[in-house]
Amino acid sequence: MYNQTLILIQCKDAVGLVSGISNSIAKHQLNIITMREYVDEEHNKFFVRVVCSGQLPSTASLLEDLRQALPEHADIQINPTNRKKLVVLVTKEHHCLADILTRHYFDTLQGEVQAVIGNYDTLKEFTEKFDIPFHYISHENKDKKDFEQEITDSIDHYAPDYIILAKFMRILSPNFVQHFERRLINIHHSFLPAFIGANPYRQAHDRGVKIIGATAHFVTDDLDEGPIIVQNTKSVDHSYDLNRMKTAGKEIEKAVLTRAIQLIMEDRVILNGNKTIVFKS
Amino acid sequence: MYNQTLILIQCKDAVGLVSGISNSIAKHQLNIITMREYVDEEHNKFFVRVVCSGQLPSTASLLEDLRQALPEHADIQINPTNRKKLVVLVTKEHHCLADILTRHYFDTLQGEVQAVIGNYDTLKEFTEKFDIPFHYISHENKDKKDFEQEITDSIDHYAPDYIILAKFMRILSPNFVQHFERRLINIHHSFLPAFIGANPYRQAHDRGVKIIGATAHFVTDDLDEGPIIVQNTKSVDHSYDLNRMKTAGKEIEKAVLTRAIQLIMEDRVILNGNKTIVFKS
Amino acid sequence: MYNQTLILIQCKDAVGLVSGISNSIAKHQLNIITMREYVDEEHNKFFVRVVCSGQLPSTASLLEDLRQALPEHADIQINPTNRKKLVVLVTKEHHCLADILTRHYFDTLQGEVQAVIGNYDTLKEFTEKFDIPFHYISHENKDKKDFEQEITDSIDHYAPDYIILAKFMRILSPNFVQHFERRLINIHHSFLPAFIGANPYRQAHDRGVKIIGATAHFVTDDLDEGPIIVQNTKSVDHSYDLNRMKTAGKEIEKAVLTRAIQLIMEDRVILNGNKTIVFKS
Amino acid sequence: MYNQTLILIQCKDAVGLVSGISNSIAKHQLNIITMREYVDEEHNKFFVRVVCSGQLPSTASLLEDLRQALPEHADIQINPTNRKKLVVLVTKEHHCLADILTRHYFDTLQGEVQAVIGNYDTLKEFTEKFDIPFHYISHENKDKKDFEQEITDSIDHYAPDYIILAKFMRILSPNFVQHFERRLINIHHSFLPAFIGANPYRQAHDRGVKIIGATAHFVTDDLDEGPIIVQNTKSVDHSYDLNRMKTAGKEIEKAVLTRAIQLIMEDRVILNGNKTIVFKS
Repeated sequence: MYNQTLILIQCKDAVGLVSGISNSIAKHQLNIITMREYVDEEHNKFFVRVVCSGQLPSTASLLEDLRQALPEHADIQINPTNRKKLVVLVTKEHHCLADILTRHYFDTLQGEVQAVIGNYDTLKEFTEKFDIPFHYISHENKDKKDFEQEITDSIDHYAPDYIILAKFMRILSPNFVQHFERRLINIHHSFLPAFIGANPYRQAHDRGVKIIGATAHFVTDDLDEGPIIVQNTKSVDHSYDLNRMKTAGKEIEKAVLTRAIQLIMEDRVILNGNKTIVFKS
Repeated sequence: MYNQTLILIQCKDAVGLVSGISNSIAKHQLNIITMREYVDEEHNKFFVRVVCSGQLPSTASLLEDLRQALPEHADIQINPTNRKKLVVLVTKEHHCLADILTRHYFDTLQGEVQAVIGNYDTLKEFTEKFDIPFHYISHENKDKKDFEQEITDSIDHYAPDYIILAKFMRILSPNFVQHFERRLINIHHSFLPAFIGANPYRQAHDRGVKIIGATAHFVTDDLDEGPIIVQNTKSVDHSYDLNRMKTAGKEIEKAVLTRAIQLIMEDRVILNGNKTIVFKS
Repeated sequence: MYNQTLILIQCKDAVGLVSGISNSIAKHQLNIITMREYVDEEHNKFFVRVVCSGQLPSTASLLEDLRQALPEHADIQINPTNRKKLVVLVTKEHHCLADILTRHYFDTLQGEVQAVIGNYDTLKEFTEKFDIPFHYISHENKDKKDFEQEITDSIDHYAPDYIILAKFMRILSPNFVQHFERRLINIHHSFLPAFIGANPYRQAHDRGVKIIGATAHFVTDDLDEGPIIVQNTKSVDHSYDLNRMKTAGKEIEKAVLTRAIQLIMEDRVILNGNKTIVFKS
Repeated sequence: MYNQTLILIQCKDAVGLVSGISNSIAKHQLNIITMREYVDEEHNKFFVRVVCSGQLPSTASLLEDLRQALPEHADIQINPTNRKKLVVLVTKEHHCLADILTRHYFDTLQGEVQAVIGNYDTLKEFTEKFDIPFHYISHENKDKKDFEQEITDSIDHYAPDYIILAKFMRILSPNFVQHFERRLINIHHSFLPAFIGANPYRQAHDRGVKIIGATAHFVTDDLDEGPIIVQNTKSVDHSYDLNRMKTAGKEIEKAVLTRAIQLIMEDRVILNGNKTIVFKS
């Protein structure tokens, strides 16, 4: 993204917004490469993501021009951190973590993995191969509150932009969720809202479904109810027993979570109430 | 399927079943083209679908041999009706019916559509273009019981093998469902078990899902809980309003229902409790 | 698309184009709903498709403003015909035609099918069910030149916006293609550029491929080399004999051609040399 | 696959083969779990893959019984090596290798990676993290013949069951290919037979395709002409420049190659002339 300027705006919808925004951009001698906008008519809100070629002499000056051109209380971001920091939480399953860490190692994740925290030490050896610190914080013989406080302290030490729950199998308290509001990304092993809660593959197997899936979503207070970022599915048939369903499902979980992370790293995901806007291209 | 023999068997699982079955088949000078079997280990049940080349001199004799070779109470079908009869129930939406009737017209559906019954007359003109009788049975100003009795009588007149609910938008009573047990096929406009009940696209839109889908299933007492035959999904994004979601969904509904019908016409779908076994190839 | 204004522009790329365009639009009190642009950097060309809400008092005045704002020789279209006229050419296979005519009948195709021309009369009866004229123009006992002249005359009589080759199995001469330049849409039964030419399913079967596909494209002089509009594929396996491959392929052909037609009807497909730009949303 | 017996057979087709095979199996007190067969009618060949539960007291005795029951020259394998050995060849691109090595590390690949050979040392550090030997054999300043001899010696040292070309970017001589006949697996970065040869993504980009793909295949003398094992595709659009196409393509390449390896590890892939039979379930 070198030599490019990224602008993210959300504000009340009005006539002439694109005109106002593109005038400000043209005034600063930037050339629009892609401009994706969305109007949420139900809530009368306007969202836009603009990529411009050319480097910006003065961010402050463009910001001022955009403020003039836009309604009050517009949320304007120019070149948000383009190397976001991540802390990853895991339990025992490796598939999502392995994909994240190898992409990180070869620098195709676009974010910076600062640390991995596990409530088991199963994935410590693997993590440390990549010179990423692994913090083992067991939940055993501990109050949930104390356990979460330890994790919170460990995360806060890194001040990450996002916390990735890469098959972290402990249910989080509302306090924890609120502390990291809008920064917690989870992978749920079903195509939500089907099979909310525990053991979705067992539920799916018992129901005799012909598709399984996975959902990456922001975590909010309501378990498995947060804004969905990416979902995908795969066909299965009667011959899939529970284990084969889980094995097939892991491939989708991994792909869906990695895709969600990449979209977030590129500032393509915008929260809009209980939904997301995802500007894929 | 001319000059082929189709054998469907379900029975208690045991050692030597394939041997016993294939011996009986070989004895009758039939050559096995495809043999697909499935063992439901949880319920200790064995299912097989065999296609043989060569014509059978005596069905009774093969049946007798198979009975000898198999455990007691085995369910054996040799060459079940290979041109099954269908009655289609509709309301106002045309997409599923249009696909069924054009395939029927060009003889690629493999079944025989005997009649269409609608609780509106919206699709009467279209149906009659194909010389299929259309029975308009309104639900208005009528007890549910009377309405269903009229439909039941109309269906029973044709004695169809299957009744296809091709976007029939009235909820059916347990009595009706029981009367046509194992013969009622419905298309539900979501990937069950997500969005059970009314207005699944509105539910999906409100939830901000990134995939929509459709499910063809046998109808049982519990609404939308019957054995699933075929499911499929399609990616959507934030820019889909409710109407566009419905339009995209109709393509999946149509494809899923038609696929389910074709699989059933070819005796590839076997009921197993609240699940189906589908031998696709 | 009632009460909406559609603007299509292509011109030399330059700084400030979006600004100039959106200013012109804002001046006319139109509100931009979606704006999709693409810059072909290799050829320094800019393309944009804008949908605005609100009705335009004066097309001429907006056109004049846009001319002022844009480089010389810009190609500007405001509200191109939104009910395009189609003539469909067929041979014997029904699947693509059936899908087009049923969608046309229920008014979900968005275009106007004026006539069907067949070099066999196989599909005459079906076509006439929908009160669409069918012209049977045999190629037998006729010079190719005469055959094509007859077809050309028949098509020109309707002056259609597009001619759809819905499994029309005669190779067309360069003269014919040039006469209908940029207006001929073909469905090729493979994922081009694989299996150019005759019998692509036989070629695919002999090669042992694990996917088959179809391609909708504009027809140019070079057989099967025109700009691609839509492609899709489907997995197959060793058990597919040639017939089953063809049957599976027909489902893709139908879906791909119909999708291409719908995209063209909505002015979402823009020719750019030997490629297309397709603004799907 | 503990406590299971796997039987692979290919022979001339005949009446009664399934009967003969299943009798032999039943005689040895094994229970058939899955039996997948395929008849190549064109070449009059029969193929079967049988999984039985129960352990075999005497392989020799079952083999003898099967020989009696089958036509002359039948190829019978009972429990072929179930932990196959692999050597992986790479150049500079990491995506396929990373997937193979992480799956190997977590023991979900099912095969045994013995060594990695690279004509650059780019991937040495990564490989050695997993305690796998990396042999750097440069092609520079060397005859092709000498280069291939060095690689051949290095591979032969390990006597692997299969050699995986995981984006190995040197064209191999017929001699090399013959030396490793039926053991060389390649990933080609297009959906063959489209875009044979060099730079398939550039070819695809220039042609303006709407799908890209990848193909895993056995290597034979004819470049990119060997039997196809797995193929998959992904939709792209006009906005994909060459780099983005390559990036998207790498995800497919990786998935397709890994899938092919897994199928081979489980003895699900059977060579049949220039095609493969793949018993997926």
